Amino acid sequence: MAAAAPAAVANGEVRGGGVPRPTNPMVTPLLTDLYQFSMAYAYWKAGKHLDHAVFDLYFRKNPFAGEFTIFGGLEECIRFIANFKFKEEEISFLRAALPTCEDGFFEYLSSIDCSEVEVYAIPEGSAVFPKVPLMIIQGPVAVVQLLETPFLTLVNYASLVTTNAARHRLVAGKQKNLLEFGLRRAQGPDGGISASRYSYMGGFDATSNVAAGRLFGIPIRGTHSHAFVSSFLGLDEIIDKALSSSDGTNRCEDFVSLVQNWLSRIQDASSLRGTFGETNQSELAAFTSYALAFPNSFLALVDTYDVMRSGVPNFCAVALALNDMGYKAGGIRLDSGDLAYLSIETRKFFYAIEKEFGVVGFGLTNITASNDLNEETIDALNKQGHEVDSFGIGTYLVTCYAQAALGCVFKLVEINKQPRIKLSEDVTKVSIPCKKRCYRLYGKEGYPLVDIMTGQDEPSPKVGERILCRHPFIESKRAHVVPQHVEELLKCYWPGNSSTQREDLTSINENRSRCMRDLDRMRPDHLRKLNPTPYKVSVSTQLYDFIHFLWLNEAPVGELQ
Amino acid sequence: MAAAAPAAVANGEVRGGGVPRPTNPMVTPLLTDLYQFSMAYAYWKAGKHLDHAVFDLYFRKNPFAGEFTIFGGLEECIRFIANFKFKEEEISFLRAALPTCEDGFFEYLSSIDCSEVEVYAIPEGSAVFPKVPLMIIQGPVAVVQLLETPFLTLVNYASLVTTNAARHRLVAGKQKNLLEFGLRRAQGPDGGISASRYSYMGGFDATSNVAAGRLFGIPIRGTHSHAFVSSFLGLDEIIDKALSSSDGTNRCEDFVSLVQNWLSRIQDASSLRGTFGETNQSELAAFTSYALAFPNSFLALVDTYDVMRSGVPNFCAVALALNDMGYKAGGIRLDSGDLAYLSIETRKFFYAIEKEFGVVGFGLTNITASNDLNEETIDALNKQGHEVDSFGIGTYLVTCYAQAALGCVFKLVEINKQPRIKLSEDVTKVSIPCKKRCYRLYGKEGYPLVDIMTGQDEPSPKVGERILCRHPFIESKRAHVVPQHVEELLKCYWPGNSSTQREDLTSINENRSRCMRDLDRMRPDHLRKLNPTPYKVSVSTQLYDFIHFLWLNEAPVGELQ
Repeated sequence: MAAAAPAAVANGEVRGGGVPRPTNPMVTPLLTDLYQFSMAYAYWKAGKHLDHAVFDLYFRKNPFAGEFTIFGGLEECIRFIANFKFKEEEISFLRAALPTCEDGFFEYLSSIDCSEVEVYAIPEGSAVFPKVPLMIIQGPVAVVQLLETPFLTLVNYASLVTTNAARHRLVAGKQKNLLEFGLRRAQGPDGGISASRYSYMGGFDATSNVAAGRLFGIPIRGTHSHAFVSSFLGLDEIIDKALSSSDGTNRCEDFVSLVQNWLSRIQDASSLRGTFGETNQSELAAFTSYALAFPNSFLALVDTYDVMRSGVPNFCAVALALNDMGYKAGGIRLDSGDLAYLSIETRKFFYAIEKEFGVVGFGLTNITASNDLNEETIDALNKQGHEVDSFGIGTYLVTCYAQAALGCVFKLVEINKQPRIKLSEDVTKVSIPCKKRCYRLYGKEGYPLVDIMTGQDEPSPKVGERILCRHPFIESKRAHVVPQHVEELLKCYWPGNSSTQREDLTSINENRSRCMRDLDRMRPDHLRKLNPTPYKVSVSTQLYDFIHFLWLNEAPVGELQ
Repeated sequence: MAAAAPAAVANGEVRGGGVPRPTNPMVTPLLTDLYQFSMAYAYWKAGKHLDHAVFDLYFRKNPFAGEFTIFGGLEECIRFIANFKFKEEEISFLRAALPTCEDGFFEYLSSIDCSEVEVYAIPEGSAVFPKVPLMIIQGPVAVVQLLETPFLTLVNYASLVTTNAARHRLVAGKQKNLLEFGLRRAQGPDGGISASRYSYMGGFDATSNVAAGRLFGIPIRGTHSHAFVSSFLGLDEIIDKALSSSDGTNRCEDFVSLVQNWLSRIQDASSLRGTFGETNQSELAAFTSYALAFPNSFLALVDTYDVMRSGVPNFCAVALALNDMGYKAGGIRLDSGDLAYLSIETRKFFYAIEKEFGVVGFGLTNITASNDLNEETIDALNKQGHEVDSFGIGTYLVTCYAQAALGCVFKLVEINKQPRIKLSEDVTKVSIPCKKRCYRLYGKEGYPLVDIMTGQDEPSPKVGERILCRHPFIESKRAHVVPQHVEELLKCYWPGNSSTQREDLTSINENRSRCMRDLDRMRPDHLRKLNPTPYKVSVSTQLYDFIHFLWLNEAPVGELQ
């Protein structure tokens, strides 16, 4: 299980029954909002700090104008609470920050950990929907309150970028190779590291990010940049020109001449005549040099000077020379211009080479595209037609440019067994009170039909038994469902001191498979890009009635004047 | 100098002449793209790895449809190179990732550090403009290439969020209190920590983020959440009801009754009669309890149930009770609804209280607003009129929602004294070759007029001497300037083994002042929100001529068919 291996940067004592520390050592109990501490003090001062509170962590709206979200960040939350303990110097800092608080409070803070907290969660990588809690966190109110900000920080971006990656996978299709190239444009170092991890979880194949590859066991990919190409001035820079053949049986003493020879043959080929003139010689030198370093995986960036007049012919010359020596070139990368047109022209060129020189399979040489790609541009390329095999996606993926934040919230739903509600002028912001159980109900075709929340002590929905599923706020919206399969959504990932059995965290590869499986299972109209159908989220009749009783009870009566 | 203190999470050996390690321990030489290593290997294999390269780090377009950017991230870059060294386990990982590379390469990697690298940069917090290098990095090509991704990762988001913060300050005006509340919605943990740091640098007054406050010495602020309010069921929960007066001379044994008494008086006050009925009693209990914990800084979130019918009257009752005991309430926070309307109504209510009960200054009680605010909503509030004193800004600030990435690039401009250019179909993407010097020229009114880049060995522009400033790509765009003041923009922050004097890094507060000063100095039309005037960026005639000579030289000649 790659993801559960101790983080390479973590160190020191490991708490919490062997659960490693958070991947980023900056994730400490101080990574929270000051008001969590002022509230903790007010609770403590009022003698309420041990009150038993239940909080729901959920979001209100799917991102990217879509109708699904993929849940990410659970493992980091569990690592966080498993190792939750204030250090002495952290307490000192808090003392200075809250100078009017009594000493007893800091003694209390020094003493706490998360052994009295319980965390229930939907498995990481699952498809999830608005209002249904991704996590239920319960325990002493002062402690659970301190978890609010770190949990939201760990879940919001993780879920957002996993969802973004999954959307890119859906639009690209299962056959394409998807590479995450976003580190340099990410929102800070672990924006980059998290993006690589969660993009992989959401269905990408690899990342360019070496640190993420090492931390999470994600495949890493990469070749060279424009700077490499322009760092060469000409072929005379290449001193060591020898290359042994792939099988070691022969050796070409002057690979440079072999490349030049191939370039002339391409230039002279009748089917290619006139498509290009003199190619850029510093580019040819860079490609040749790169091929000498990586004869097994020669992949060239072809747009430093001109794709069709220089980059592609230069690539082919080197690739054919490599072919003579028993090596198969990896392909090209396009990083500017009209990717549909250039990929199609390049593919034609490759097929012309295959035909002209009888190099079987050359026409299928891999074409990677990587210039400011996103869901929309891939969709447009698909509609227009293209010959791209692999997409390298950076900025728009990792910064979630189309919607840079997910709005998960952390709301009190019960205290000392008393259900609590948070009202709002905006009905969508009213919280659903009570500690709840949540189920996904599947229909005859195998599709999930609806998620339903019930009170904690209600009987669970049964296969084959009709159940009324109600919209939590709109009385007229309700439907009978006879489930063919019932899945309880939340499992106990941190039982605290309770005797509930603890669910093991799953590896990044298992989470990735879960994501793919959940999306495969969804009815396609929930997933489509344009006007997707909302997936239904409901409550039981008993919970519905209770919400509305509490709402009336708490809302002040208006006075029209 | 707060920012130069060793990061609280850093540890182990400190290299680089006492420069602390990067703030985030995850920033290591492996935090880079794989292709930096494959290029390094190809350079090494070709014997080119020691070639002397010069790279420019710059951006092409100001973010947020604006005409300025604030440079952030320099200190972290210097910390990174000062401590740049591969660990043995990192080399082992690279060996496994690049199995075809020769052993000698890994021995070379093990041996390198940044002692042969030189870094020139514009001071952090400065106003900067497209195409002018923020940093010039020179040294052995293989080493400098390895710095590309981490430098971009450290600069892109830092500069973006600093600029975003500065834009919020410009629209809010100098008198308002700006609080950064974004940690929970940030793109991961150090997205949050960096956001807090660079928002402060860009002109915010404080953050809610405790870890950032500790790391960077930024003021921290915060009160309580909706959950605190709804965690109370009623006033009978408050056991310890006593409160000593501010000066310690007397003690109120039943502060709860004092509050209830004030609430009745407000309800009965002729000027307020009929504006509200029964207030929510759990809210009143929460406010009272919070006031007992923080009598010196009672600030209440008033929108859990209903702002004008419950939150504000409850706040006033508690504030007036505190006033009896010699304490001044801190104010209220609005977190939903029509902030313009609610702030104005609240202000009227406060003035009515001041008048009714003769509490001098009560009308001016602080009003904080914090619901999904951004540059646009503050601008709209300003136009509409409002009574907000402090803005708490989260999501839109820290995720830079309006534009989630800045596109800084890292381009080779010279190798072994040979200038290099990167061409593109898109003229704005053509790089400006040569190692350069960059100046800001100021006019008679004290405004900066233009930035100009010259070749390294050209004489610098002189005060009072006319100089021709040319657009780098468009021949007809040029202007004569007689500068009244000339400022060389880049200073040497990392001299490597050279004898150049090393510029000290400046503290976060100095950087913040530099940002404010630079923006104060700009001609206002460059800063305005709507259709700002672009600030001019130019090259000398000599550099202009050279760019176009090289461009013609490298571009392949087309063949129209």
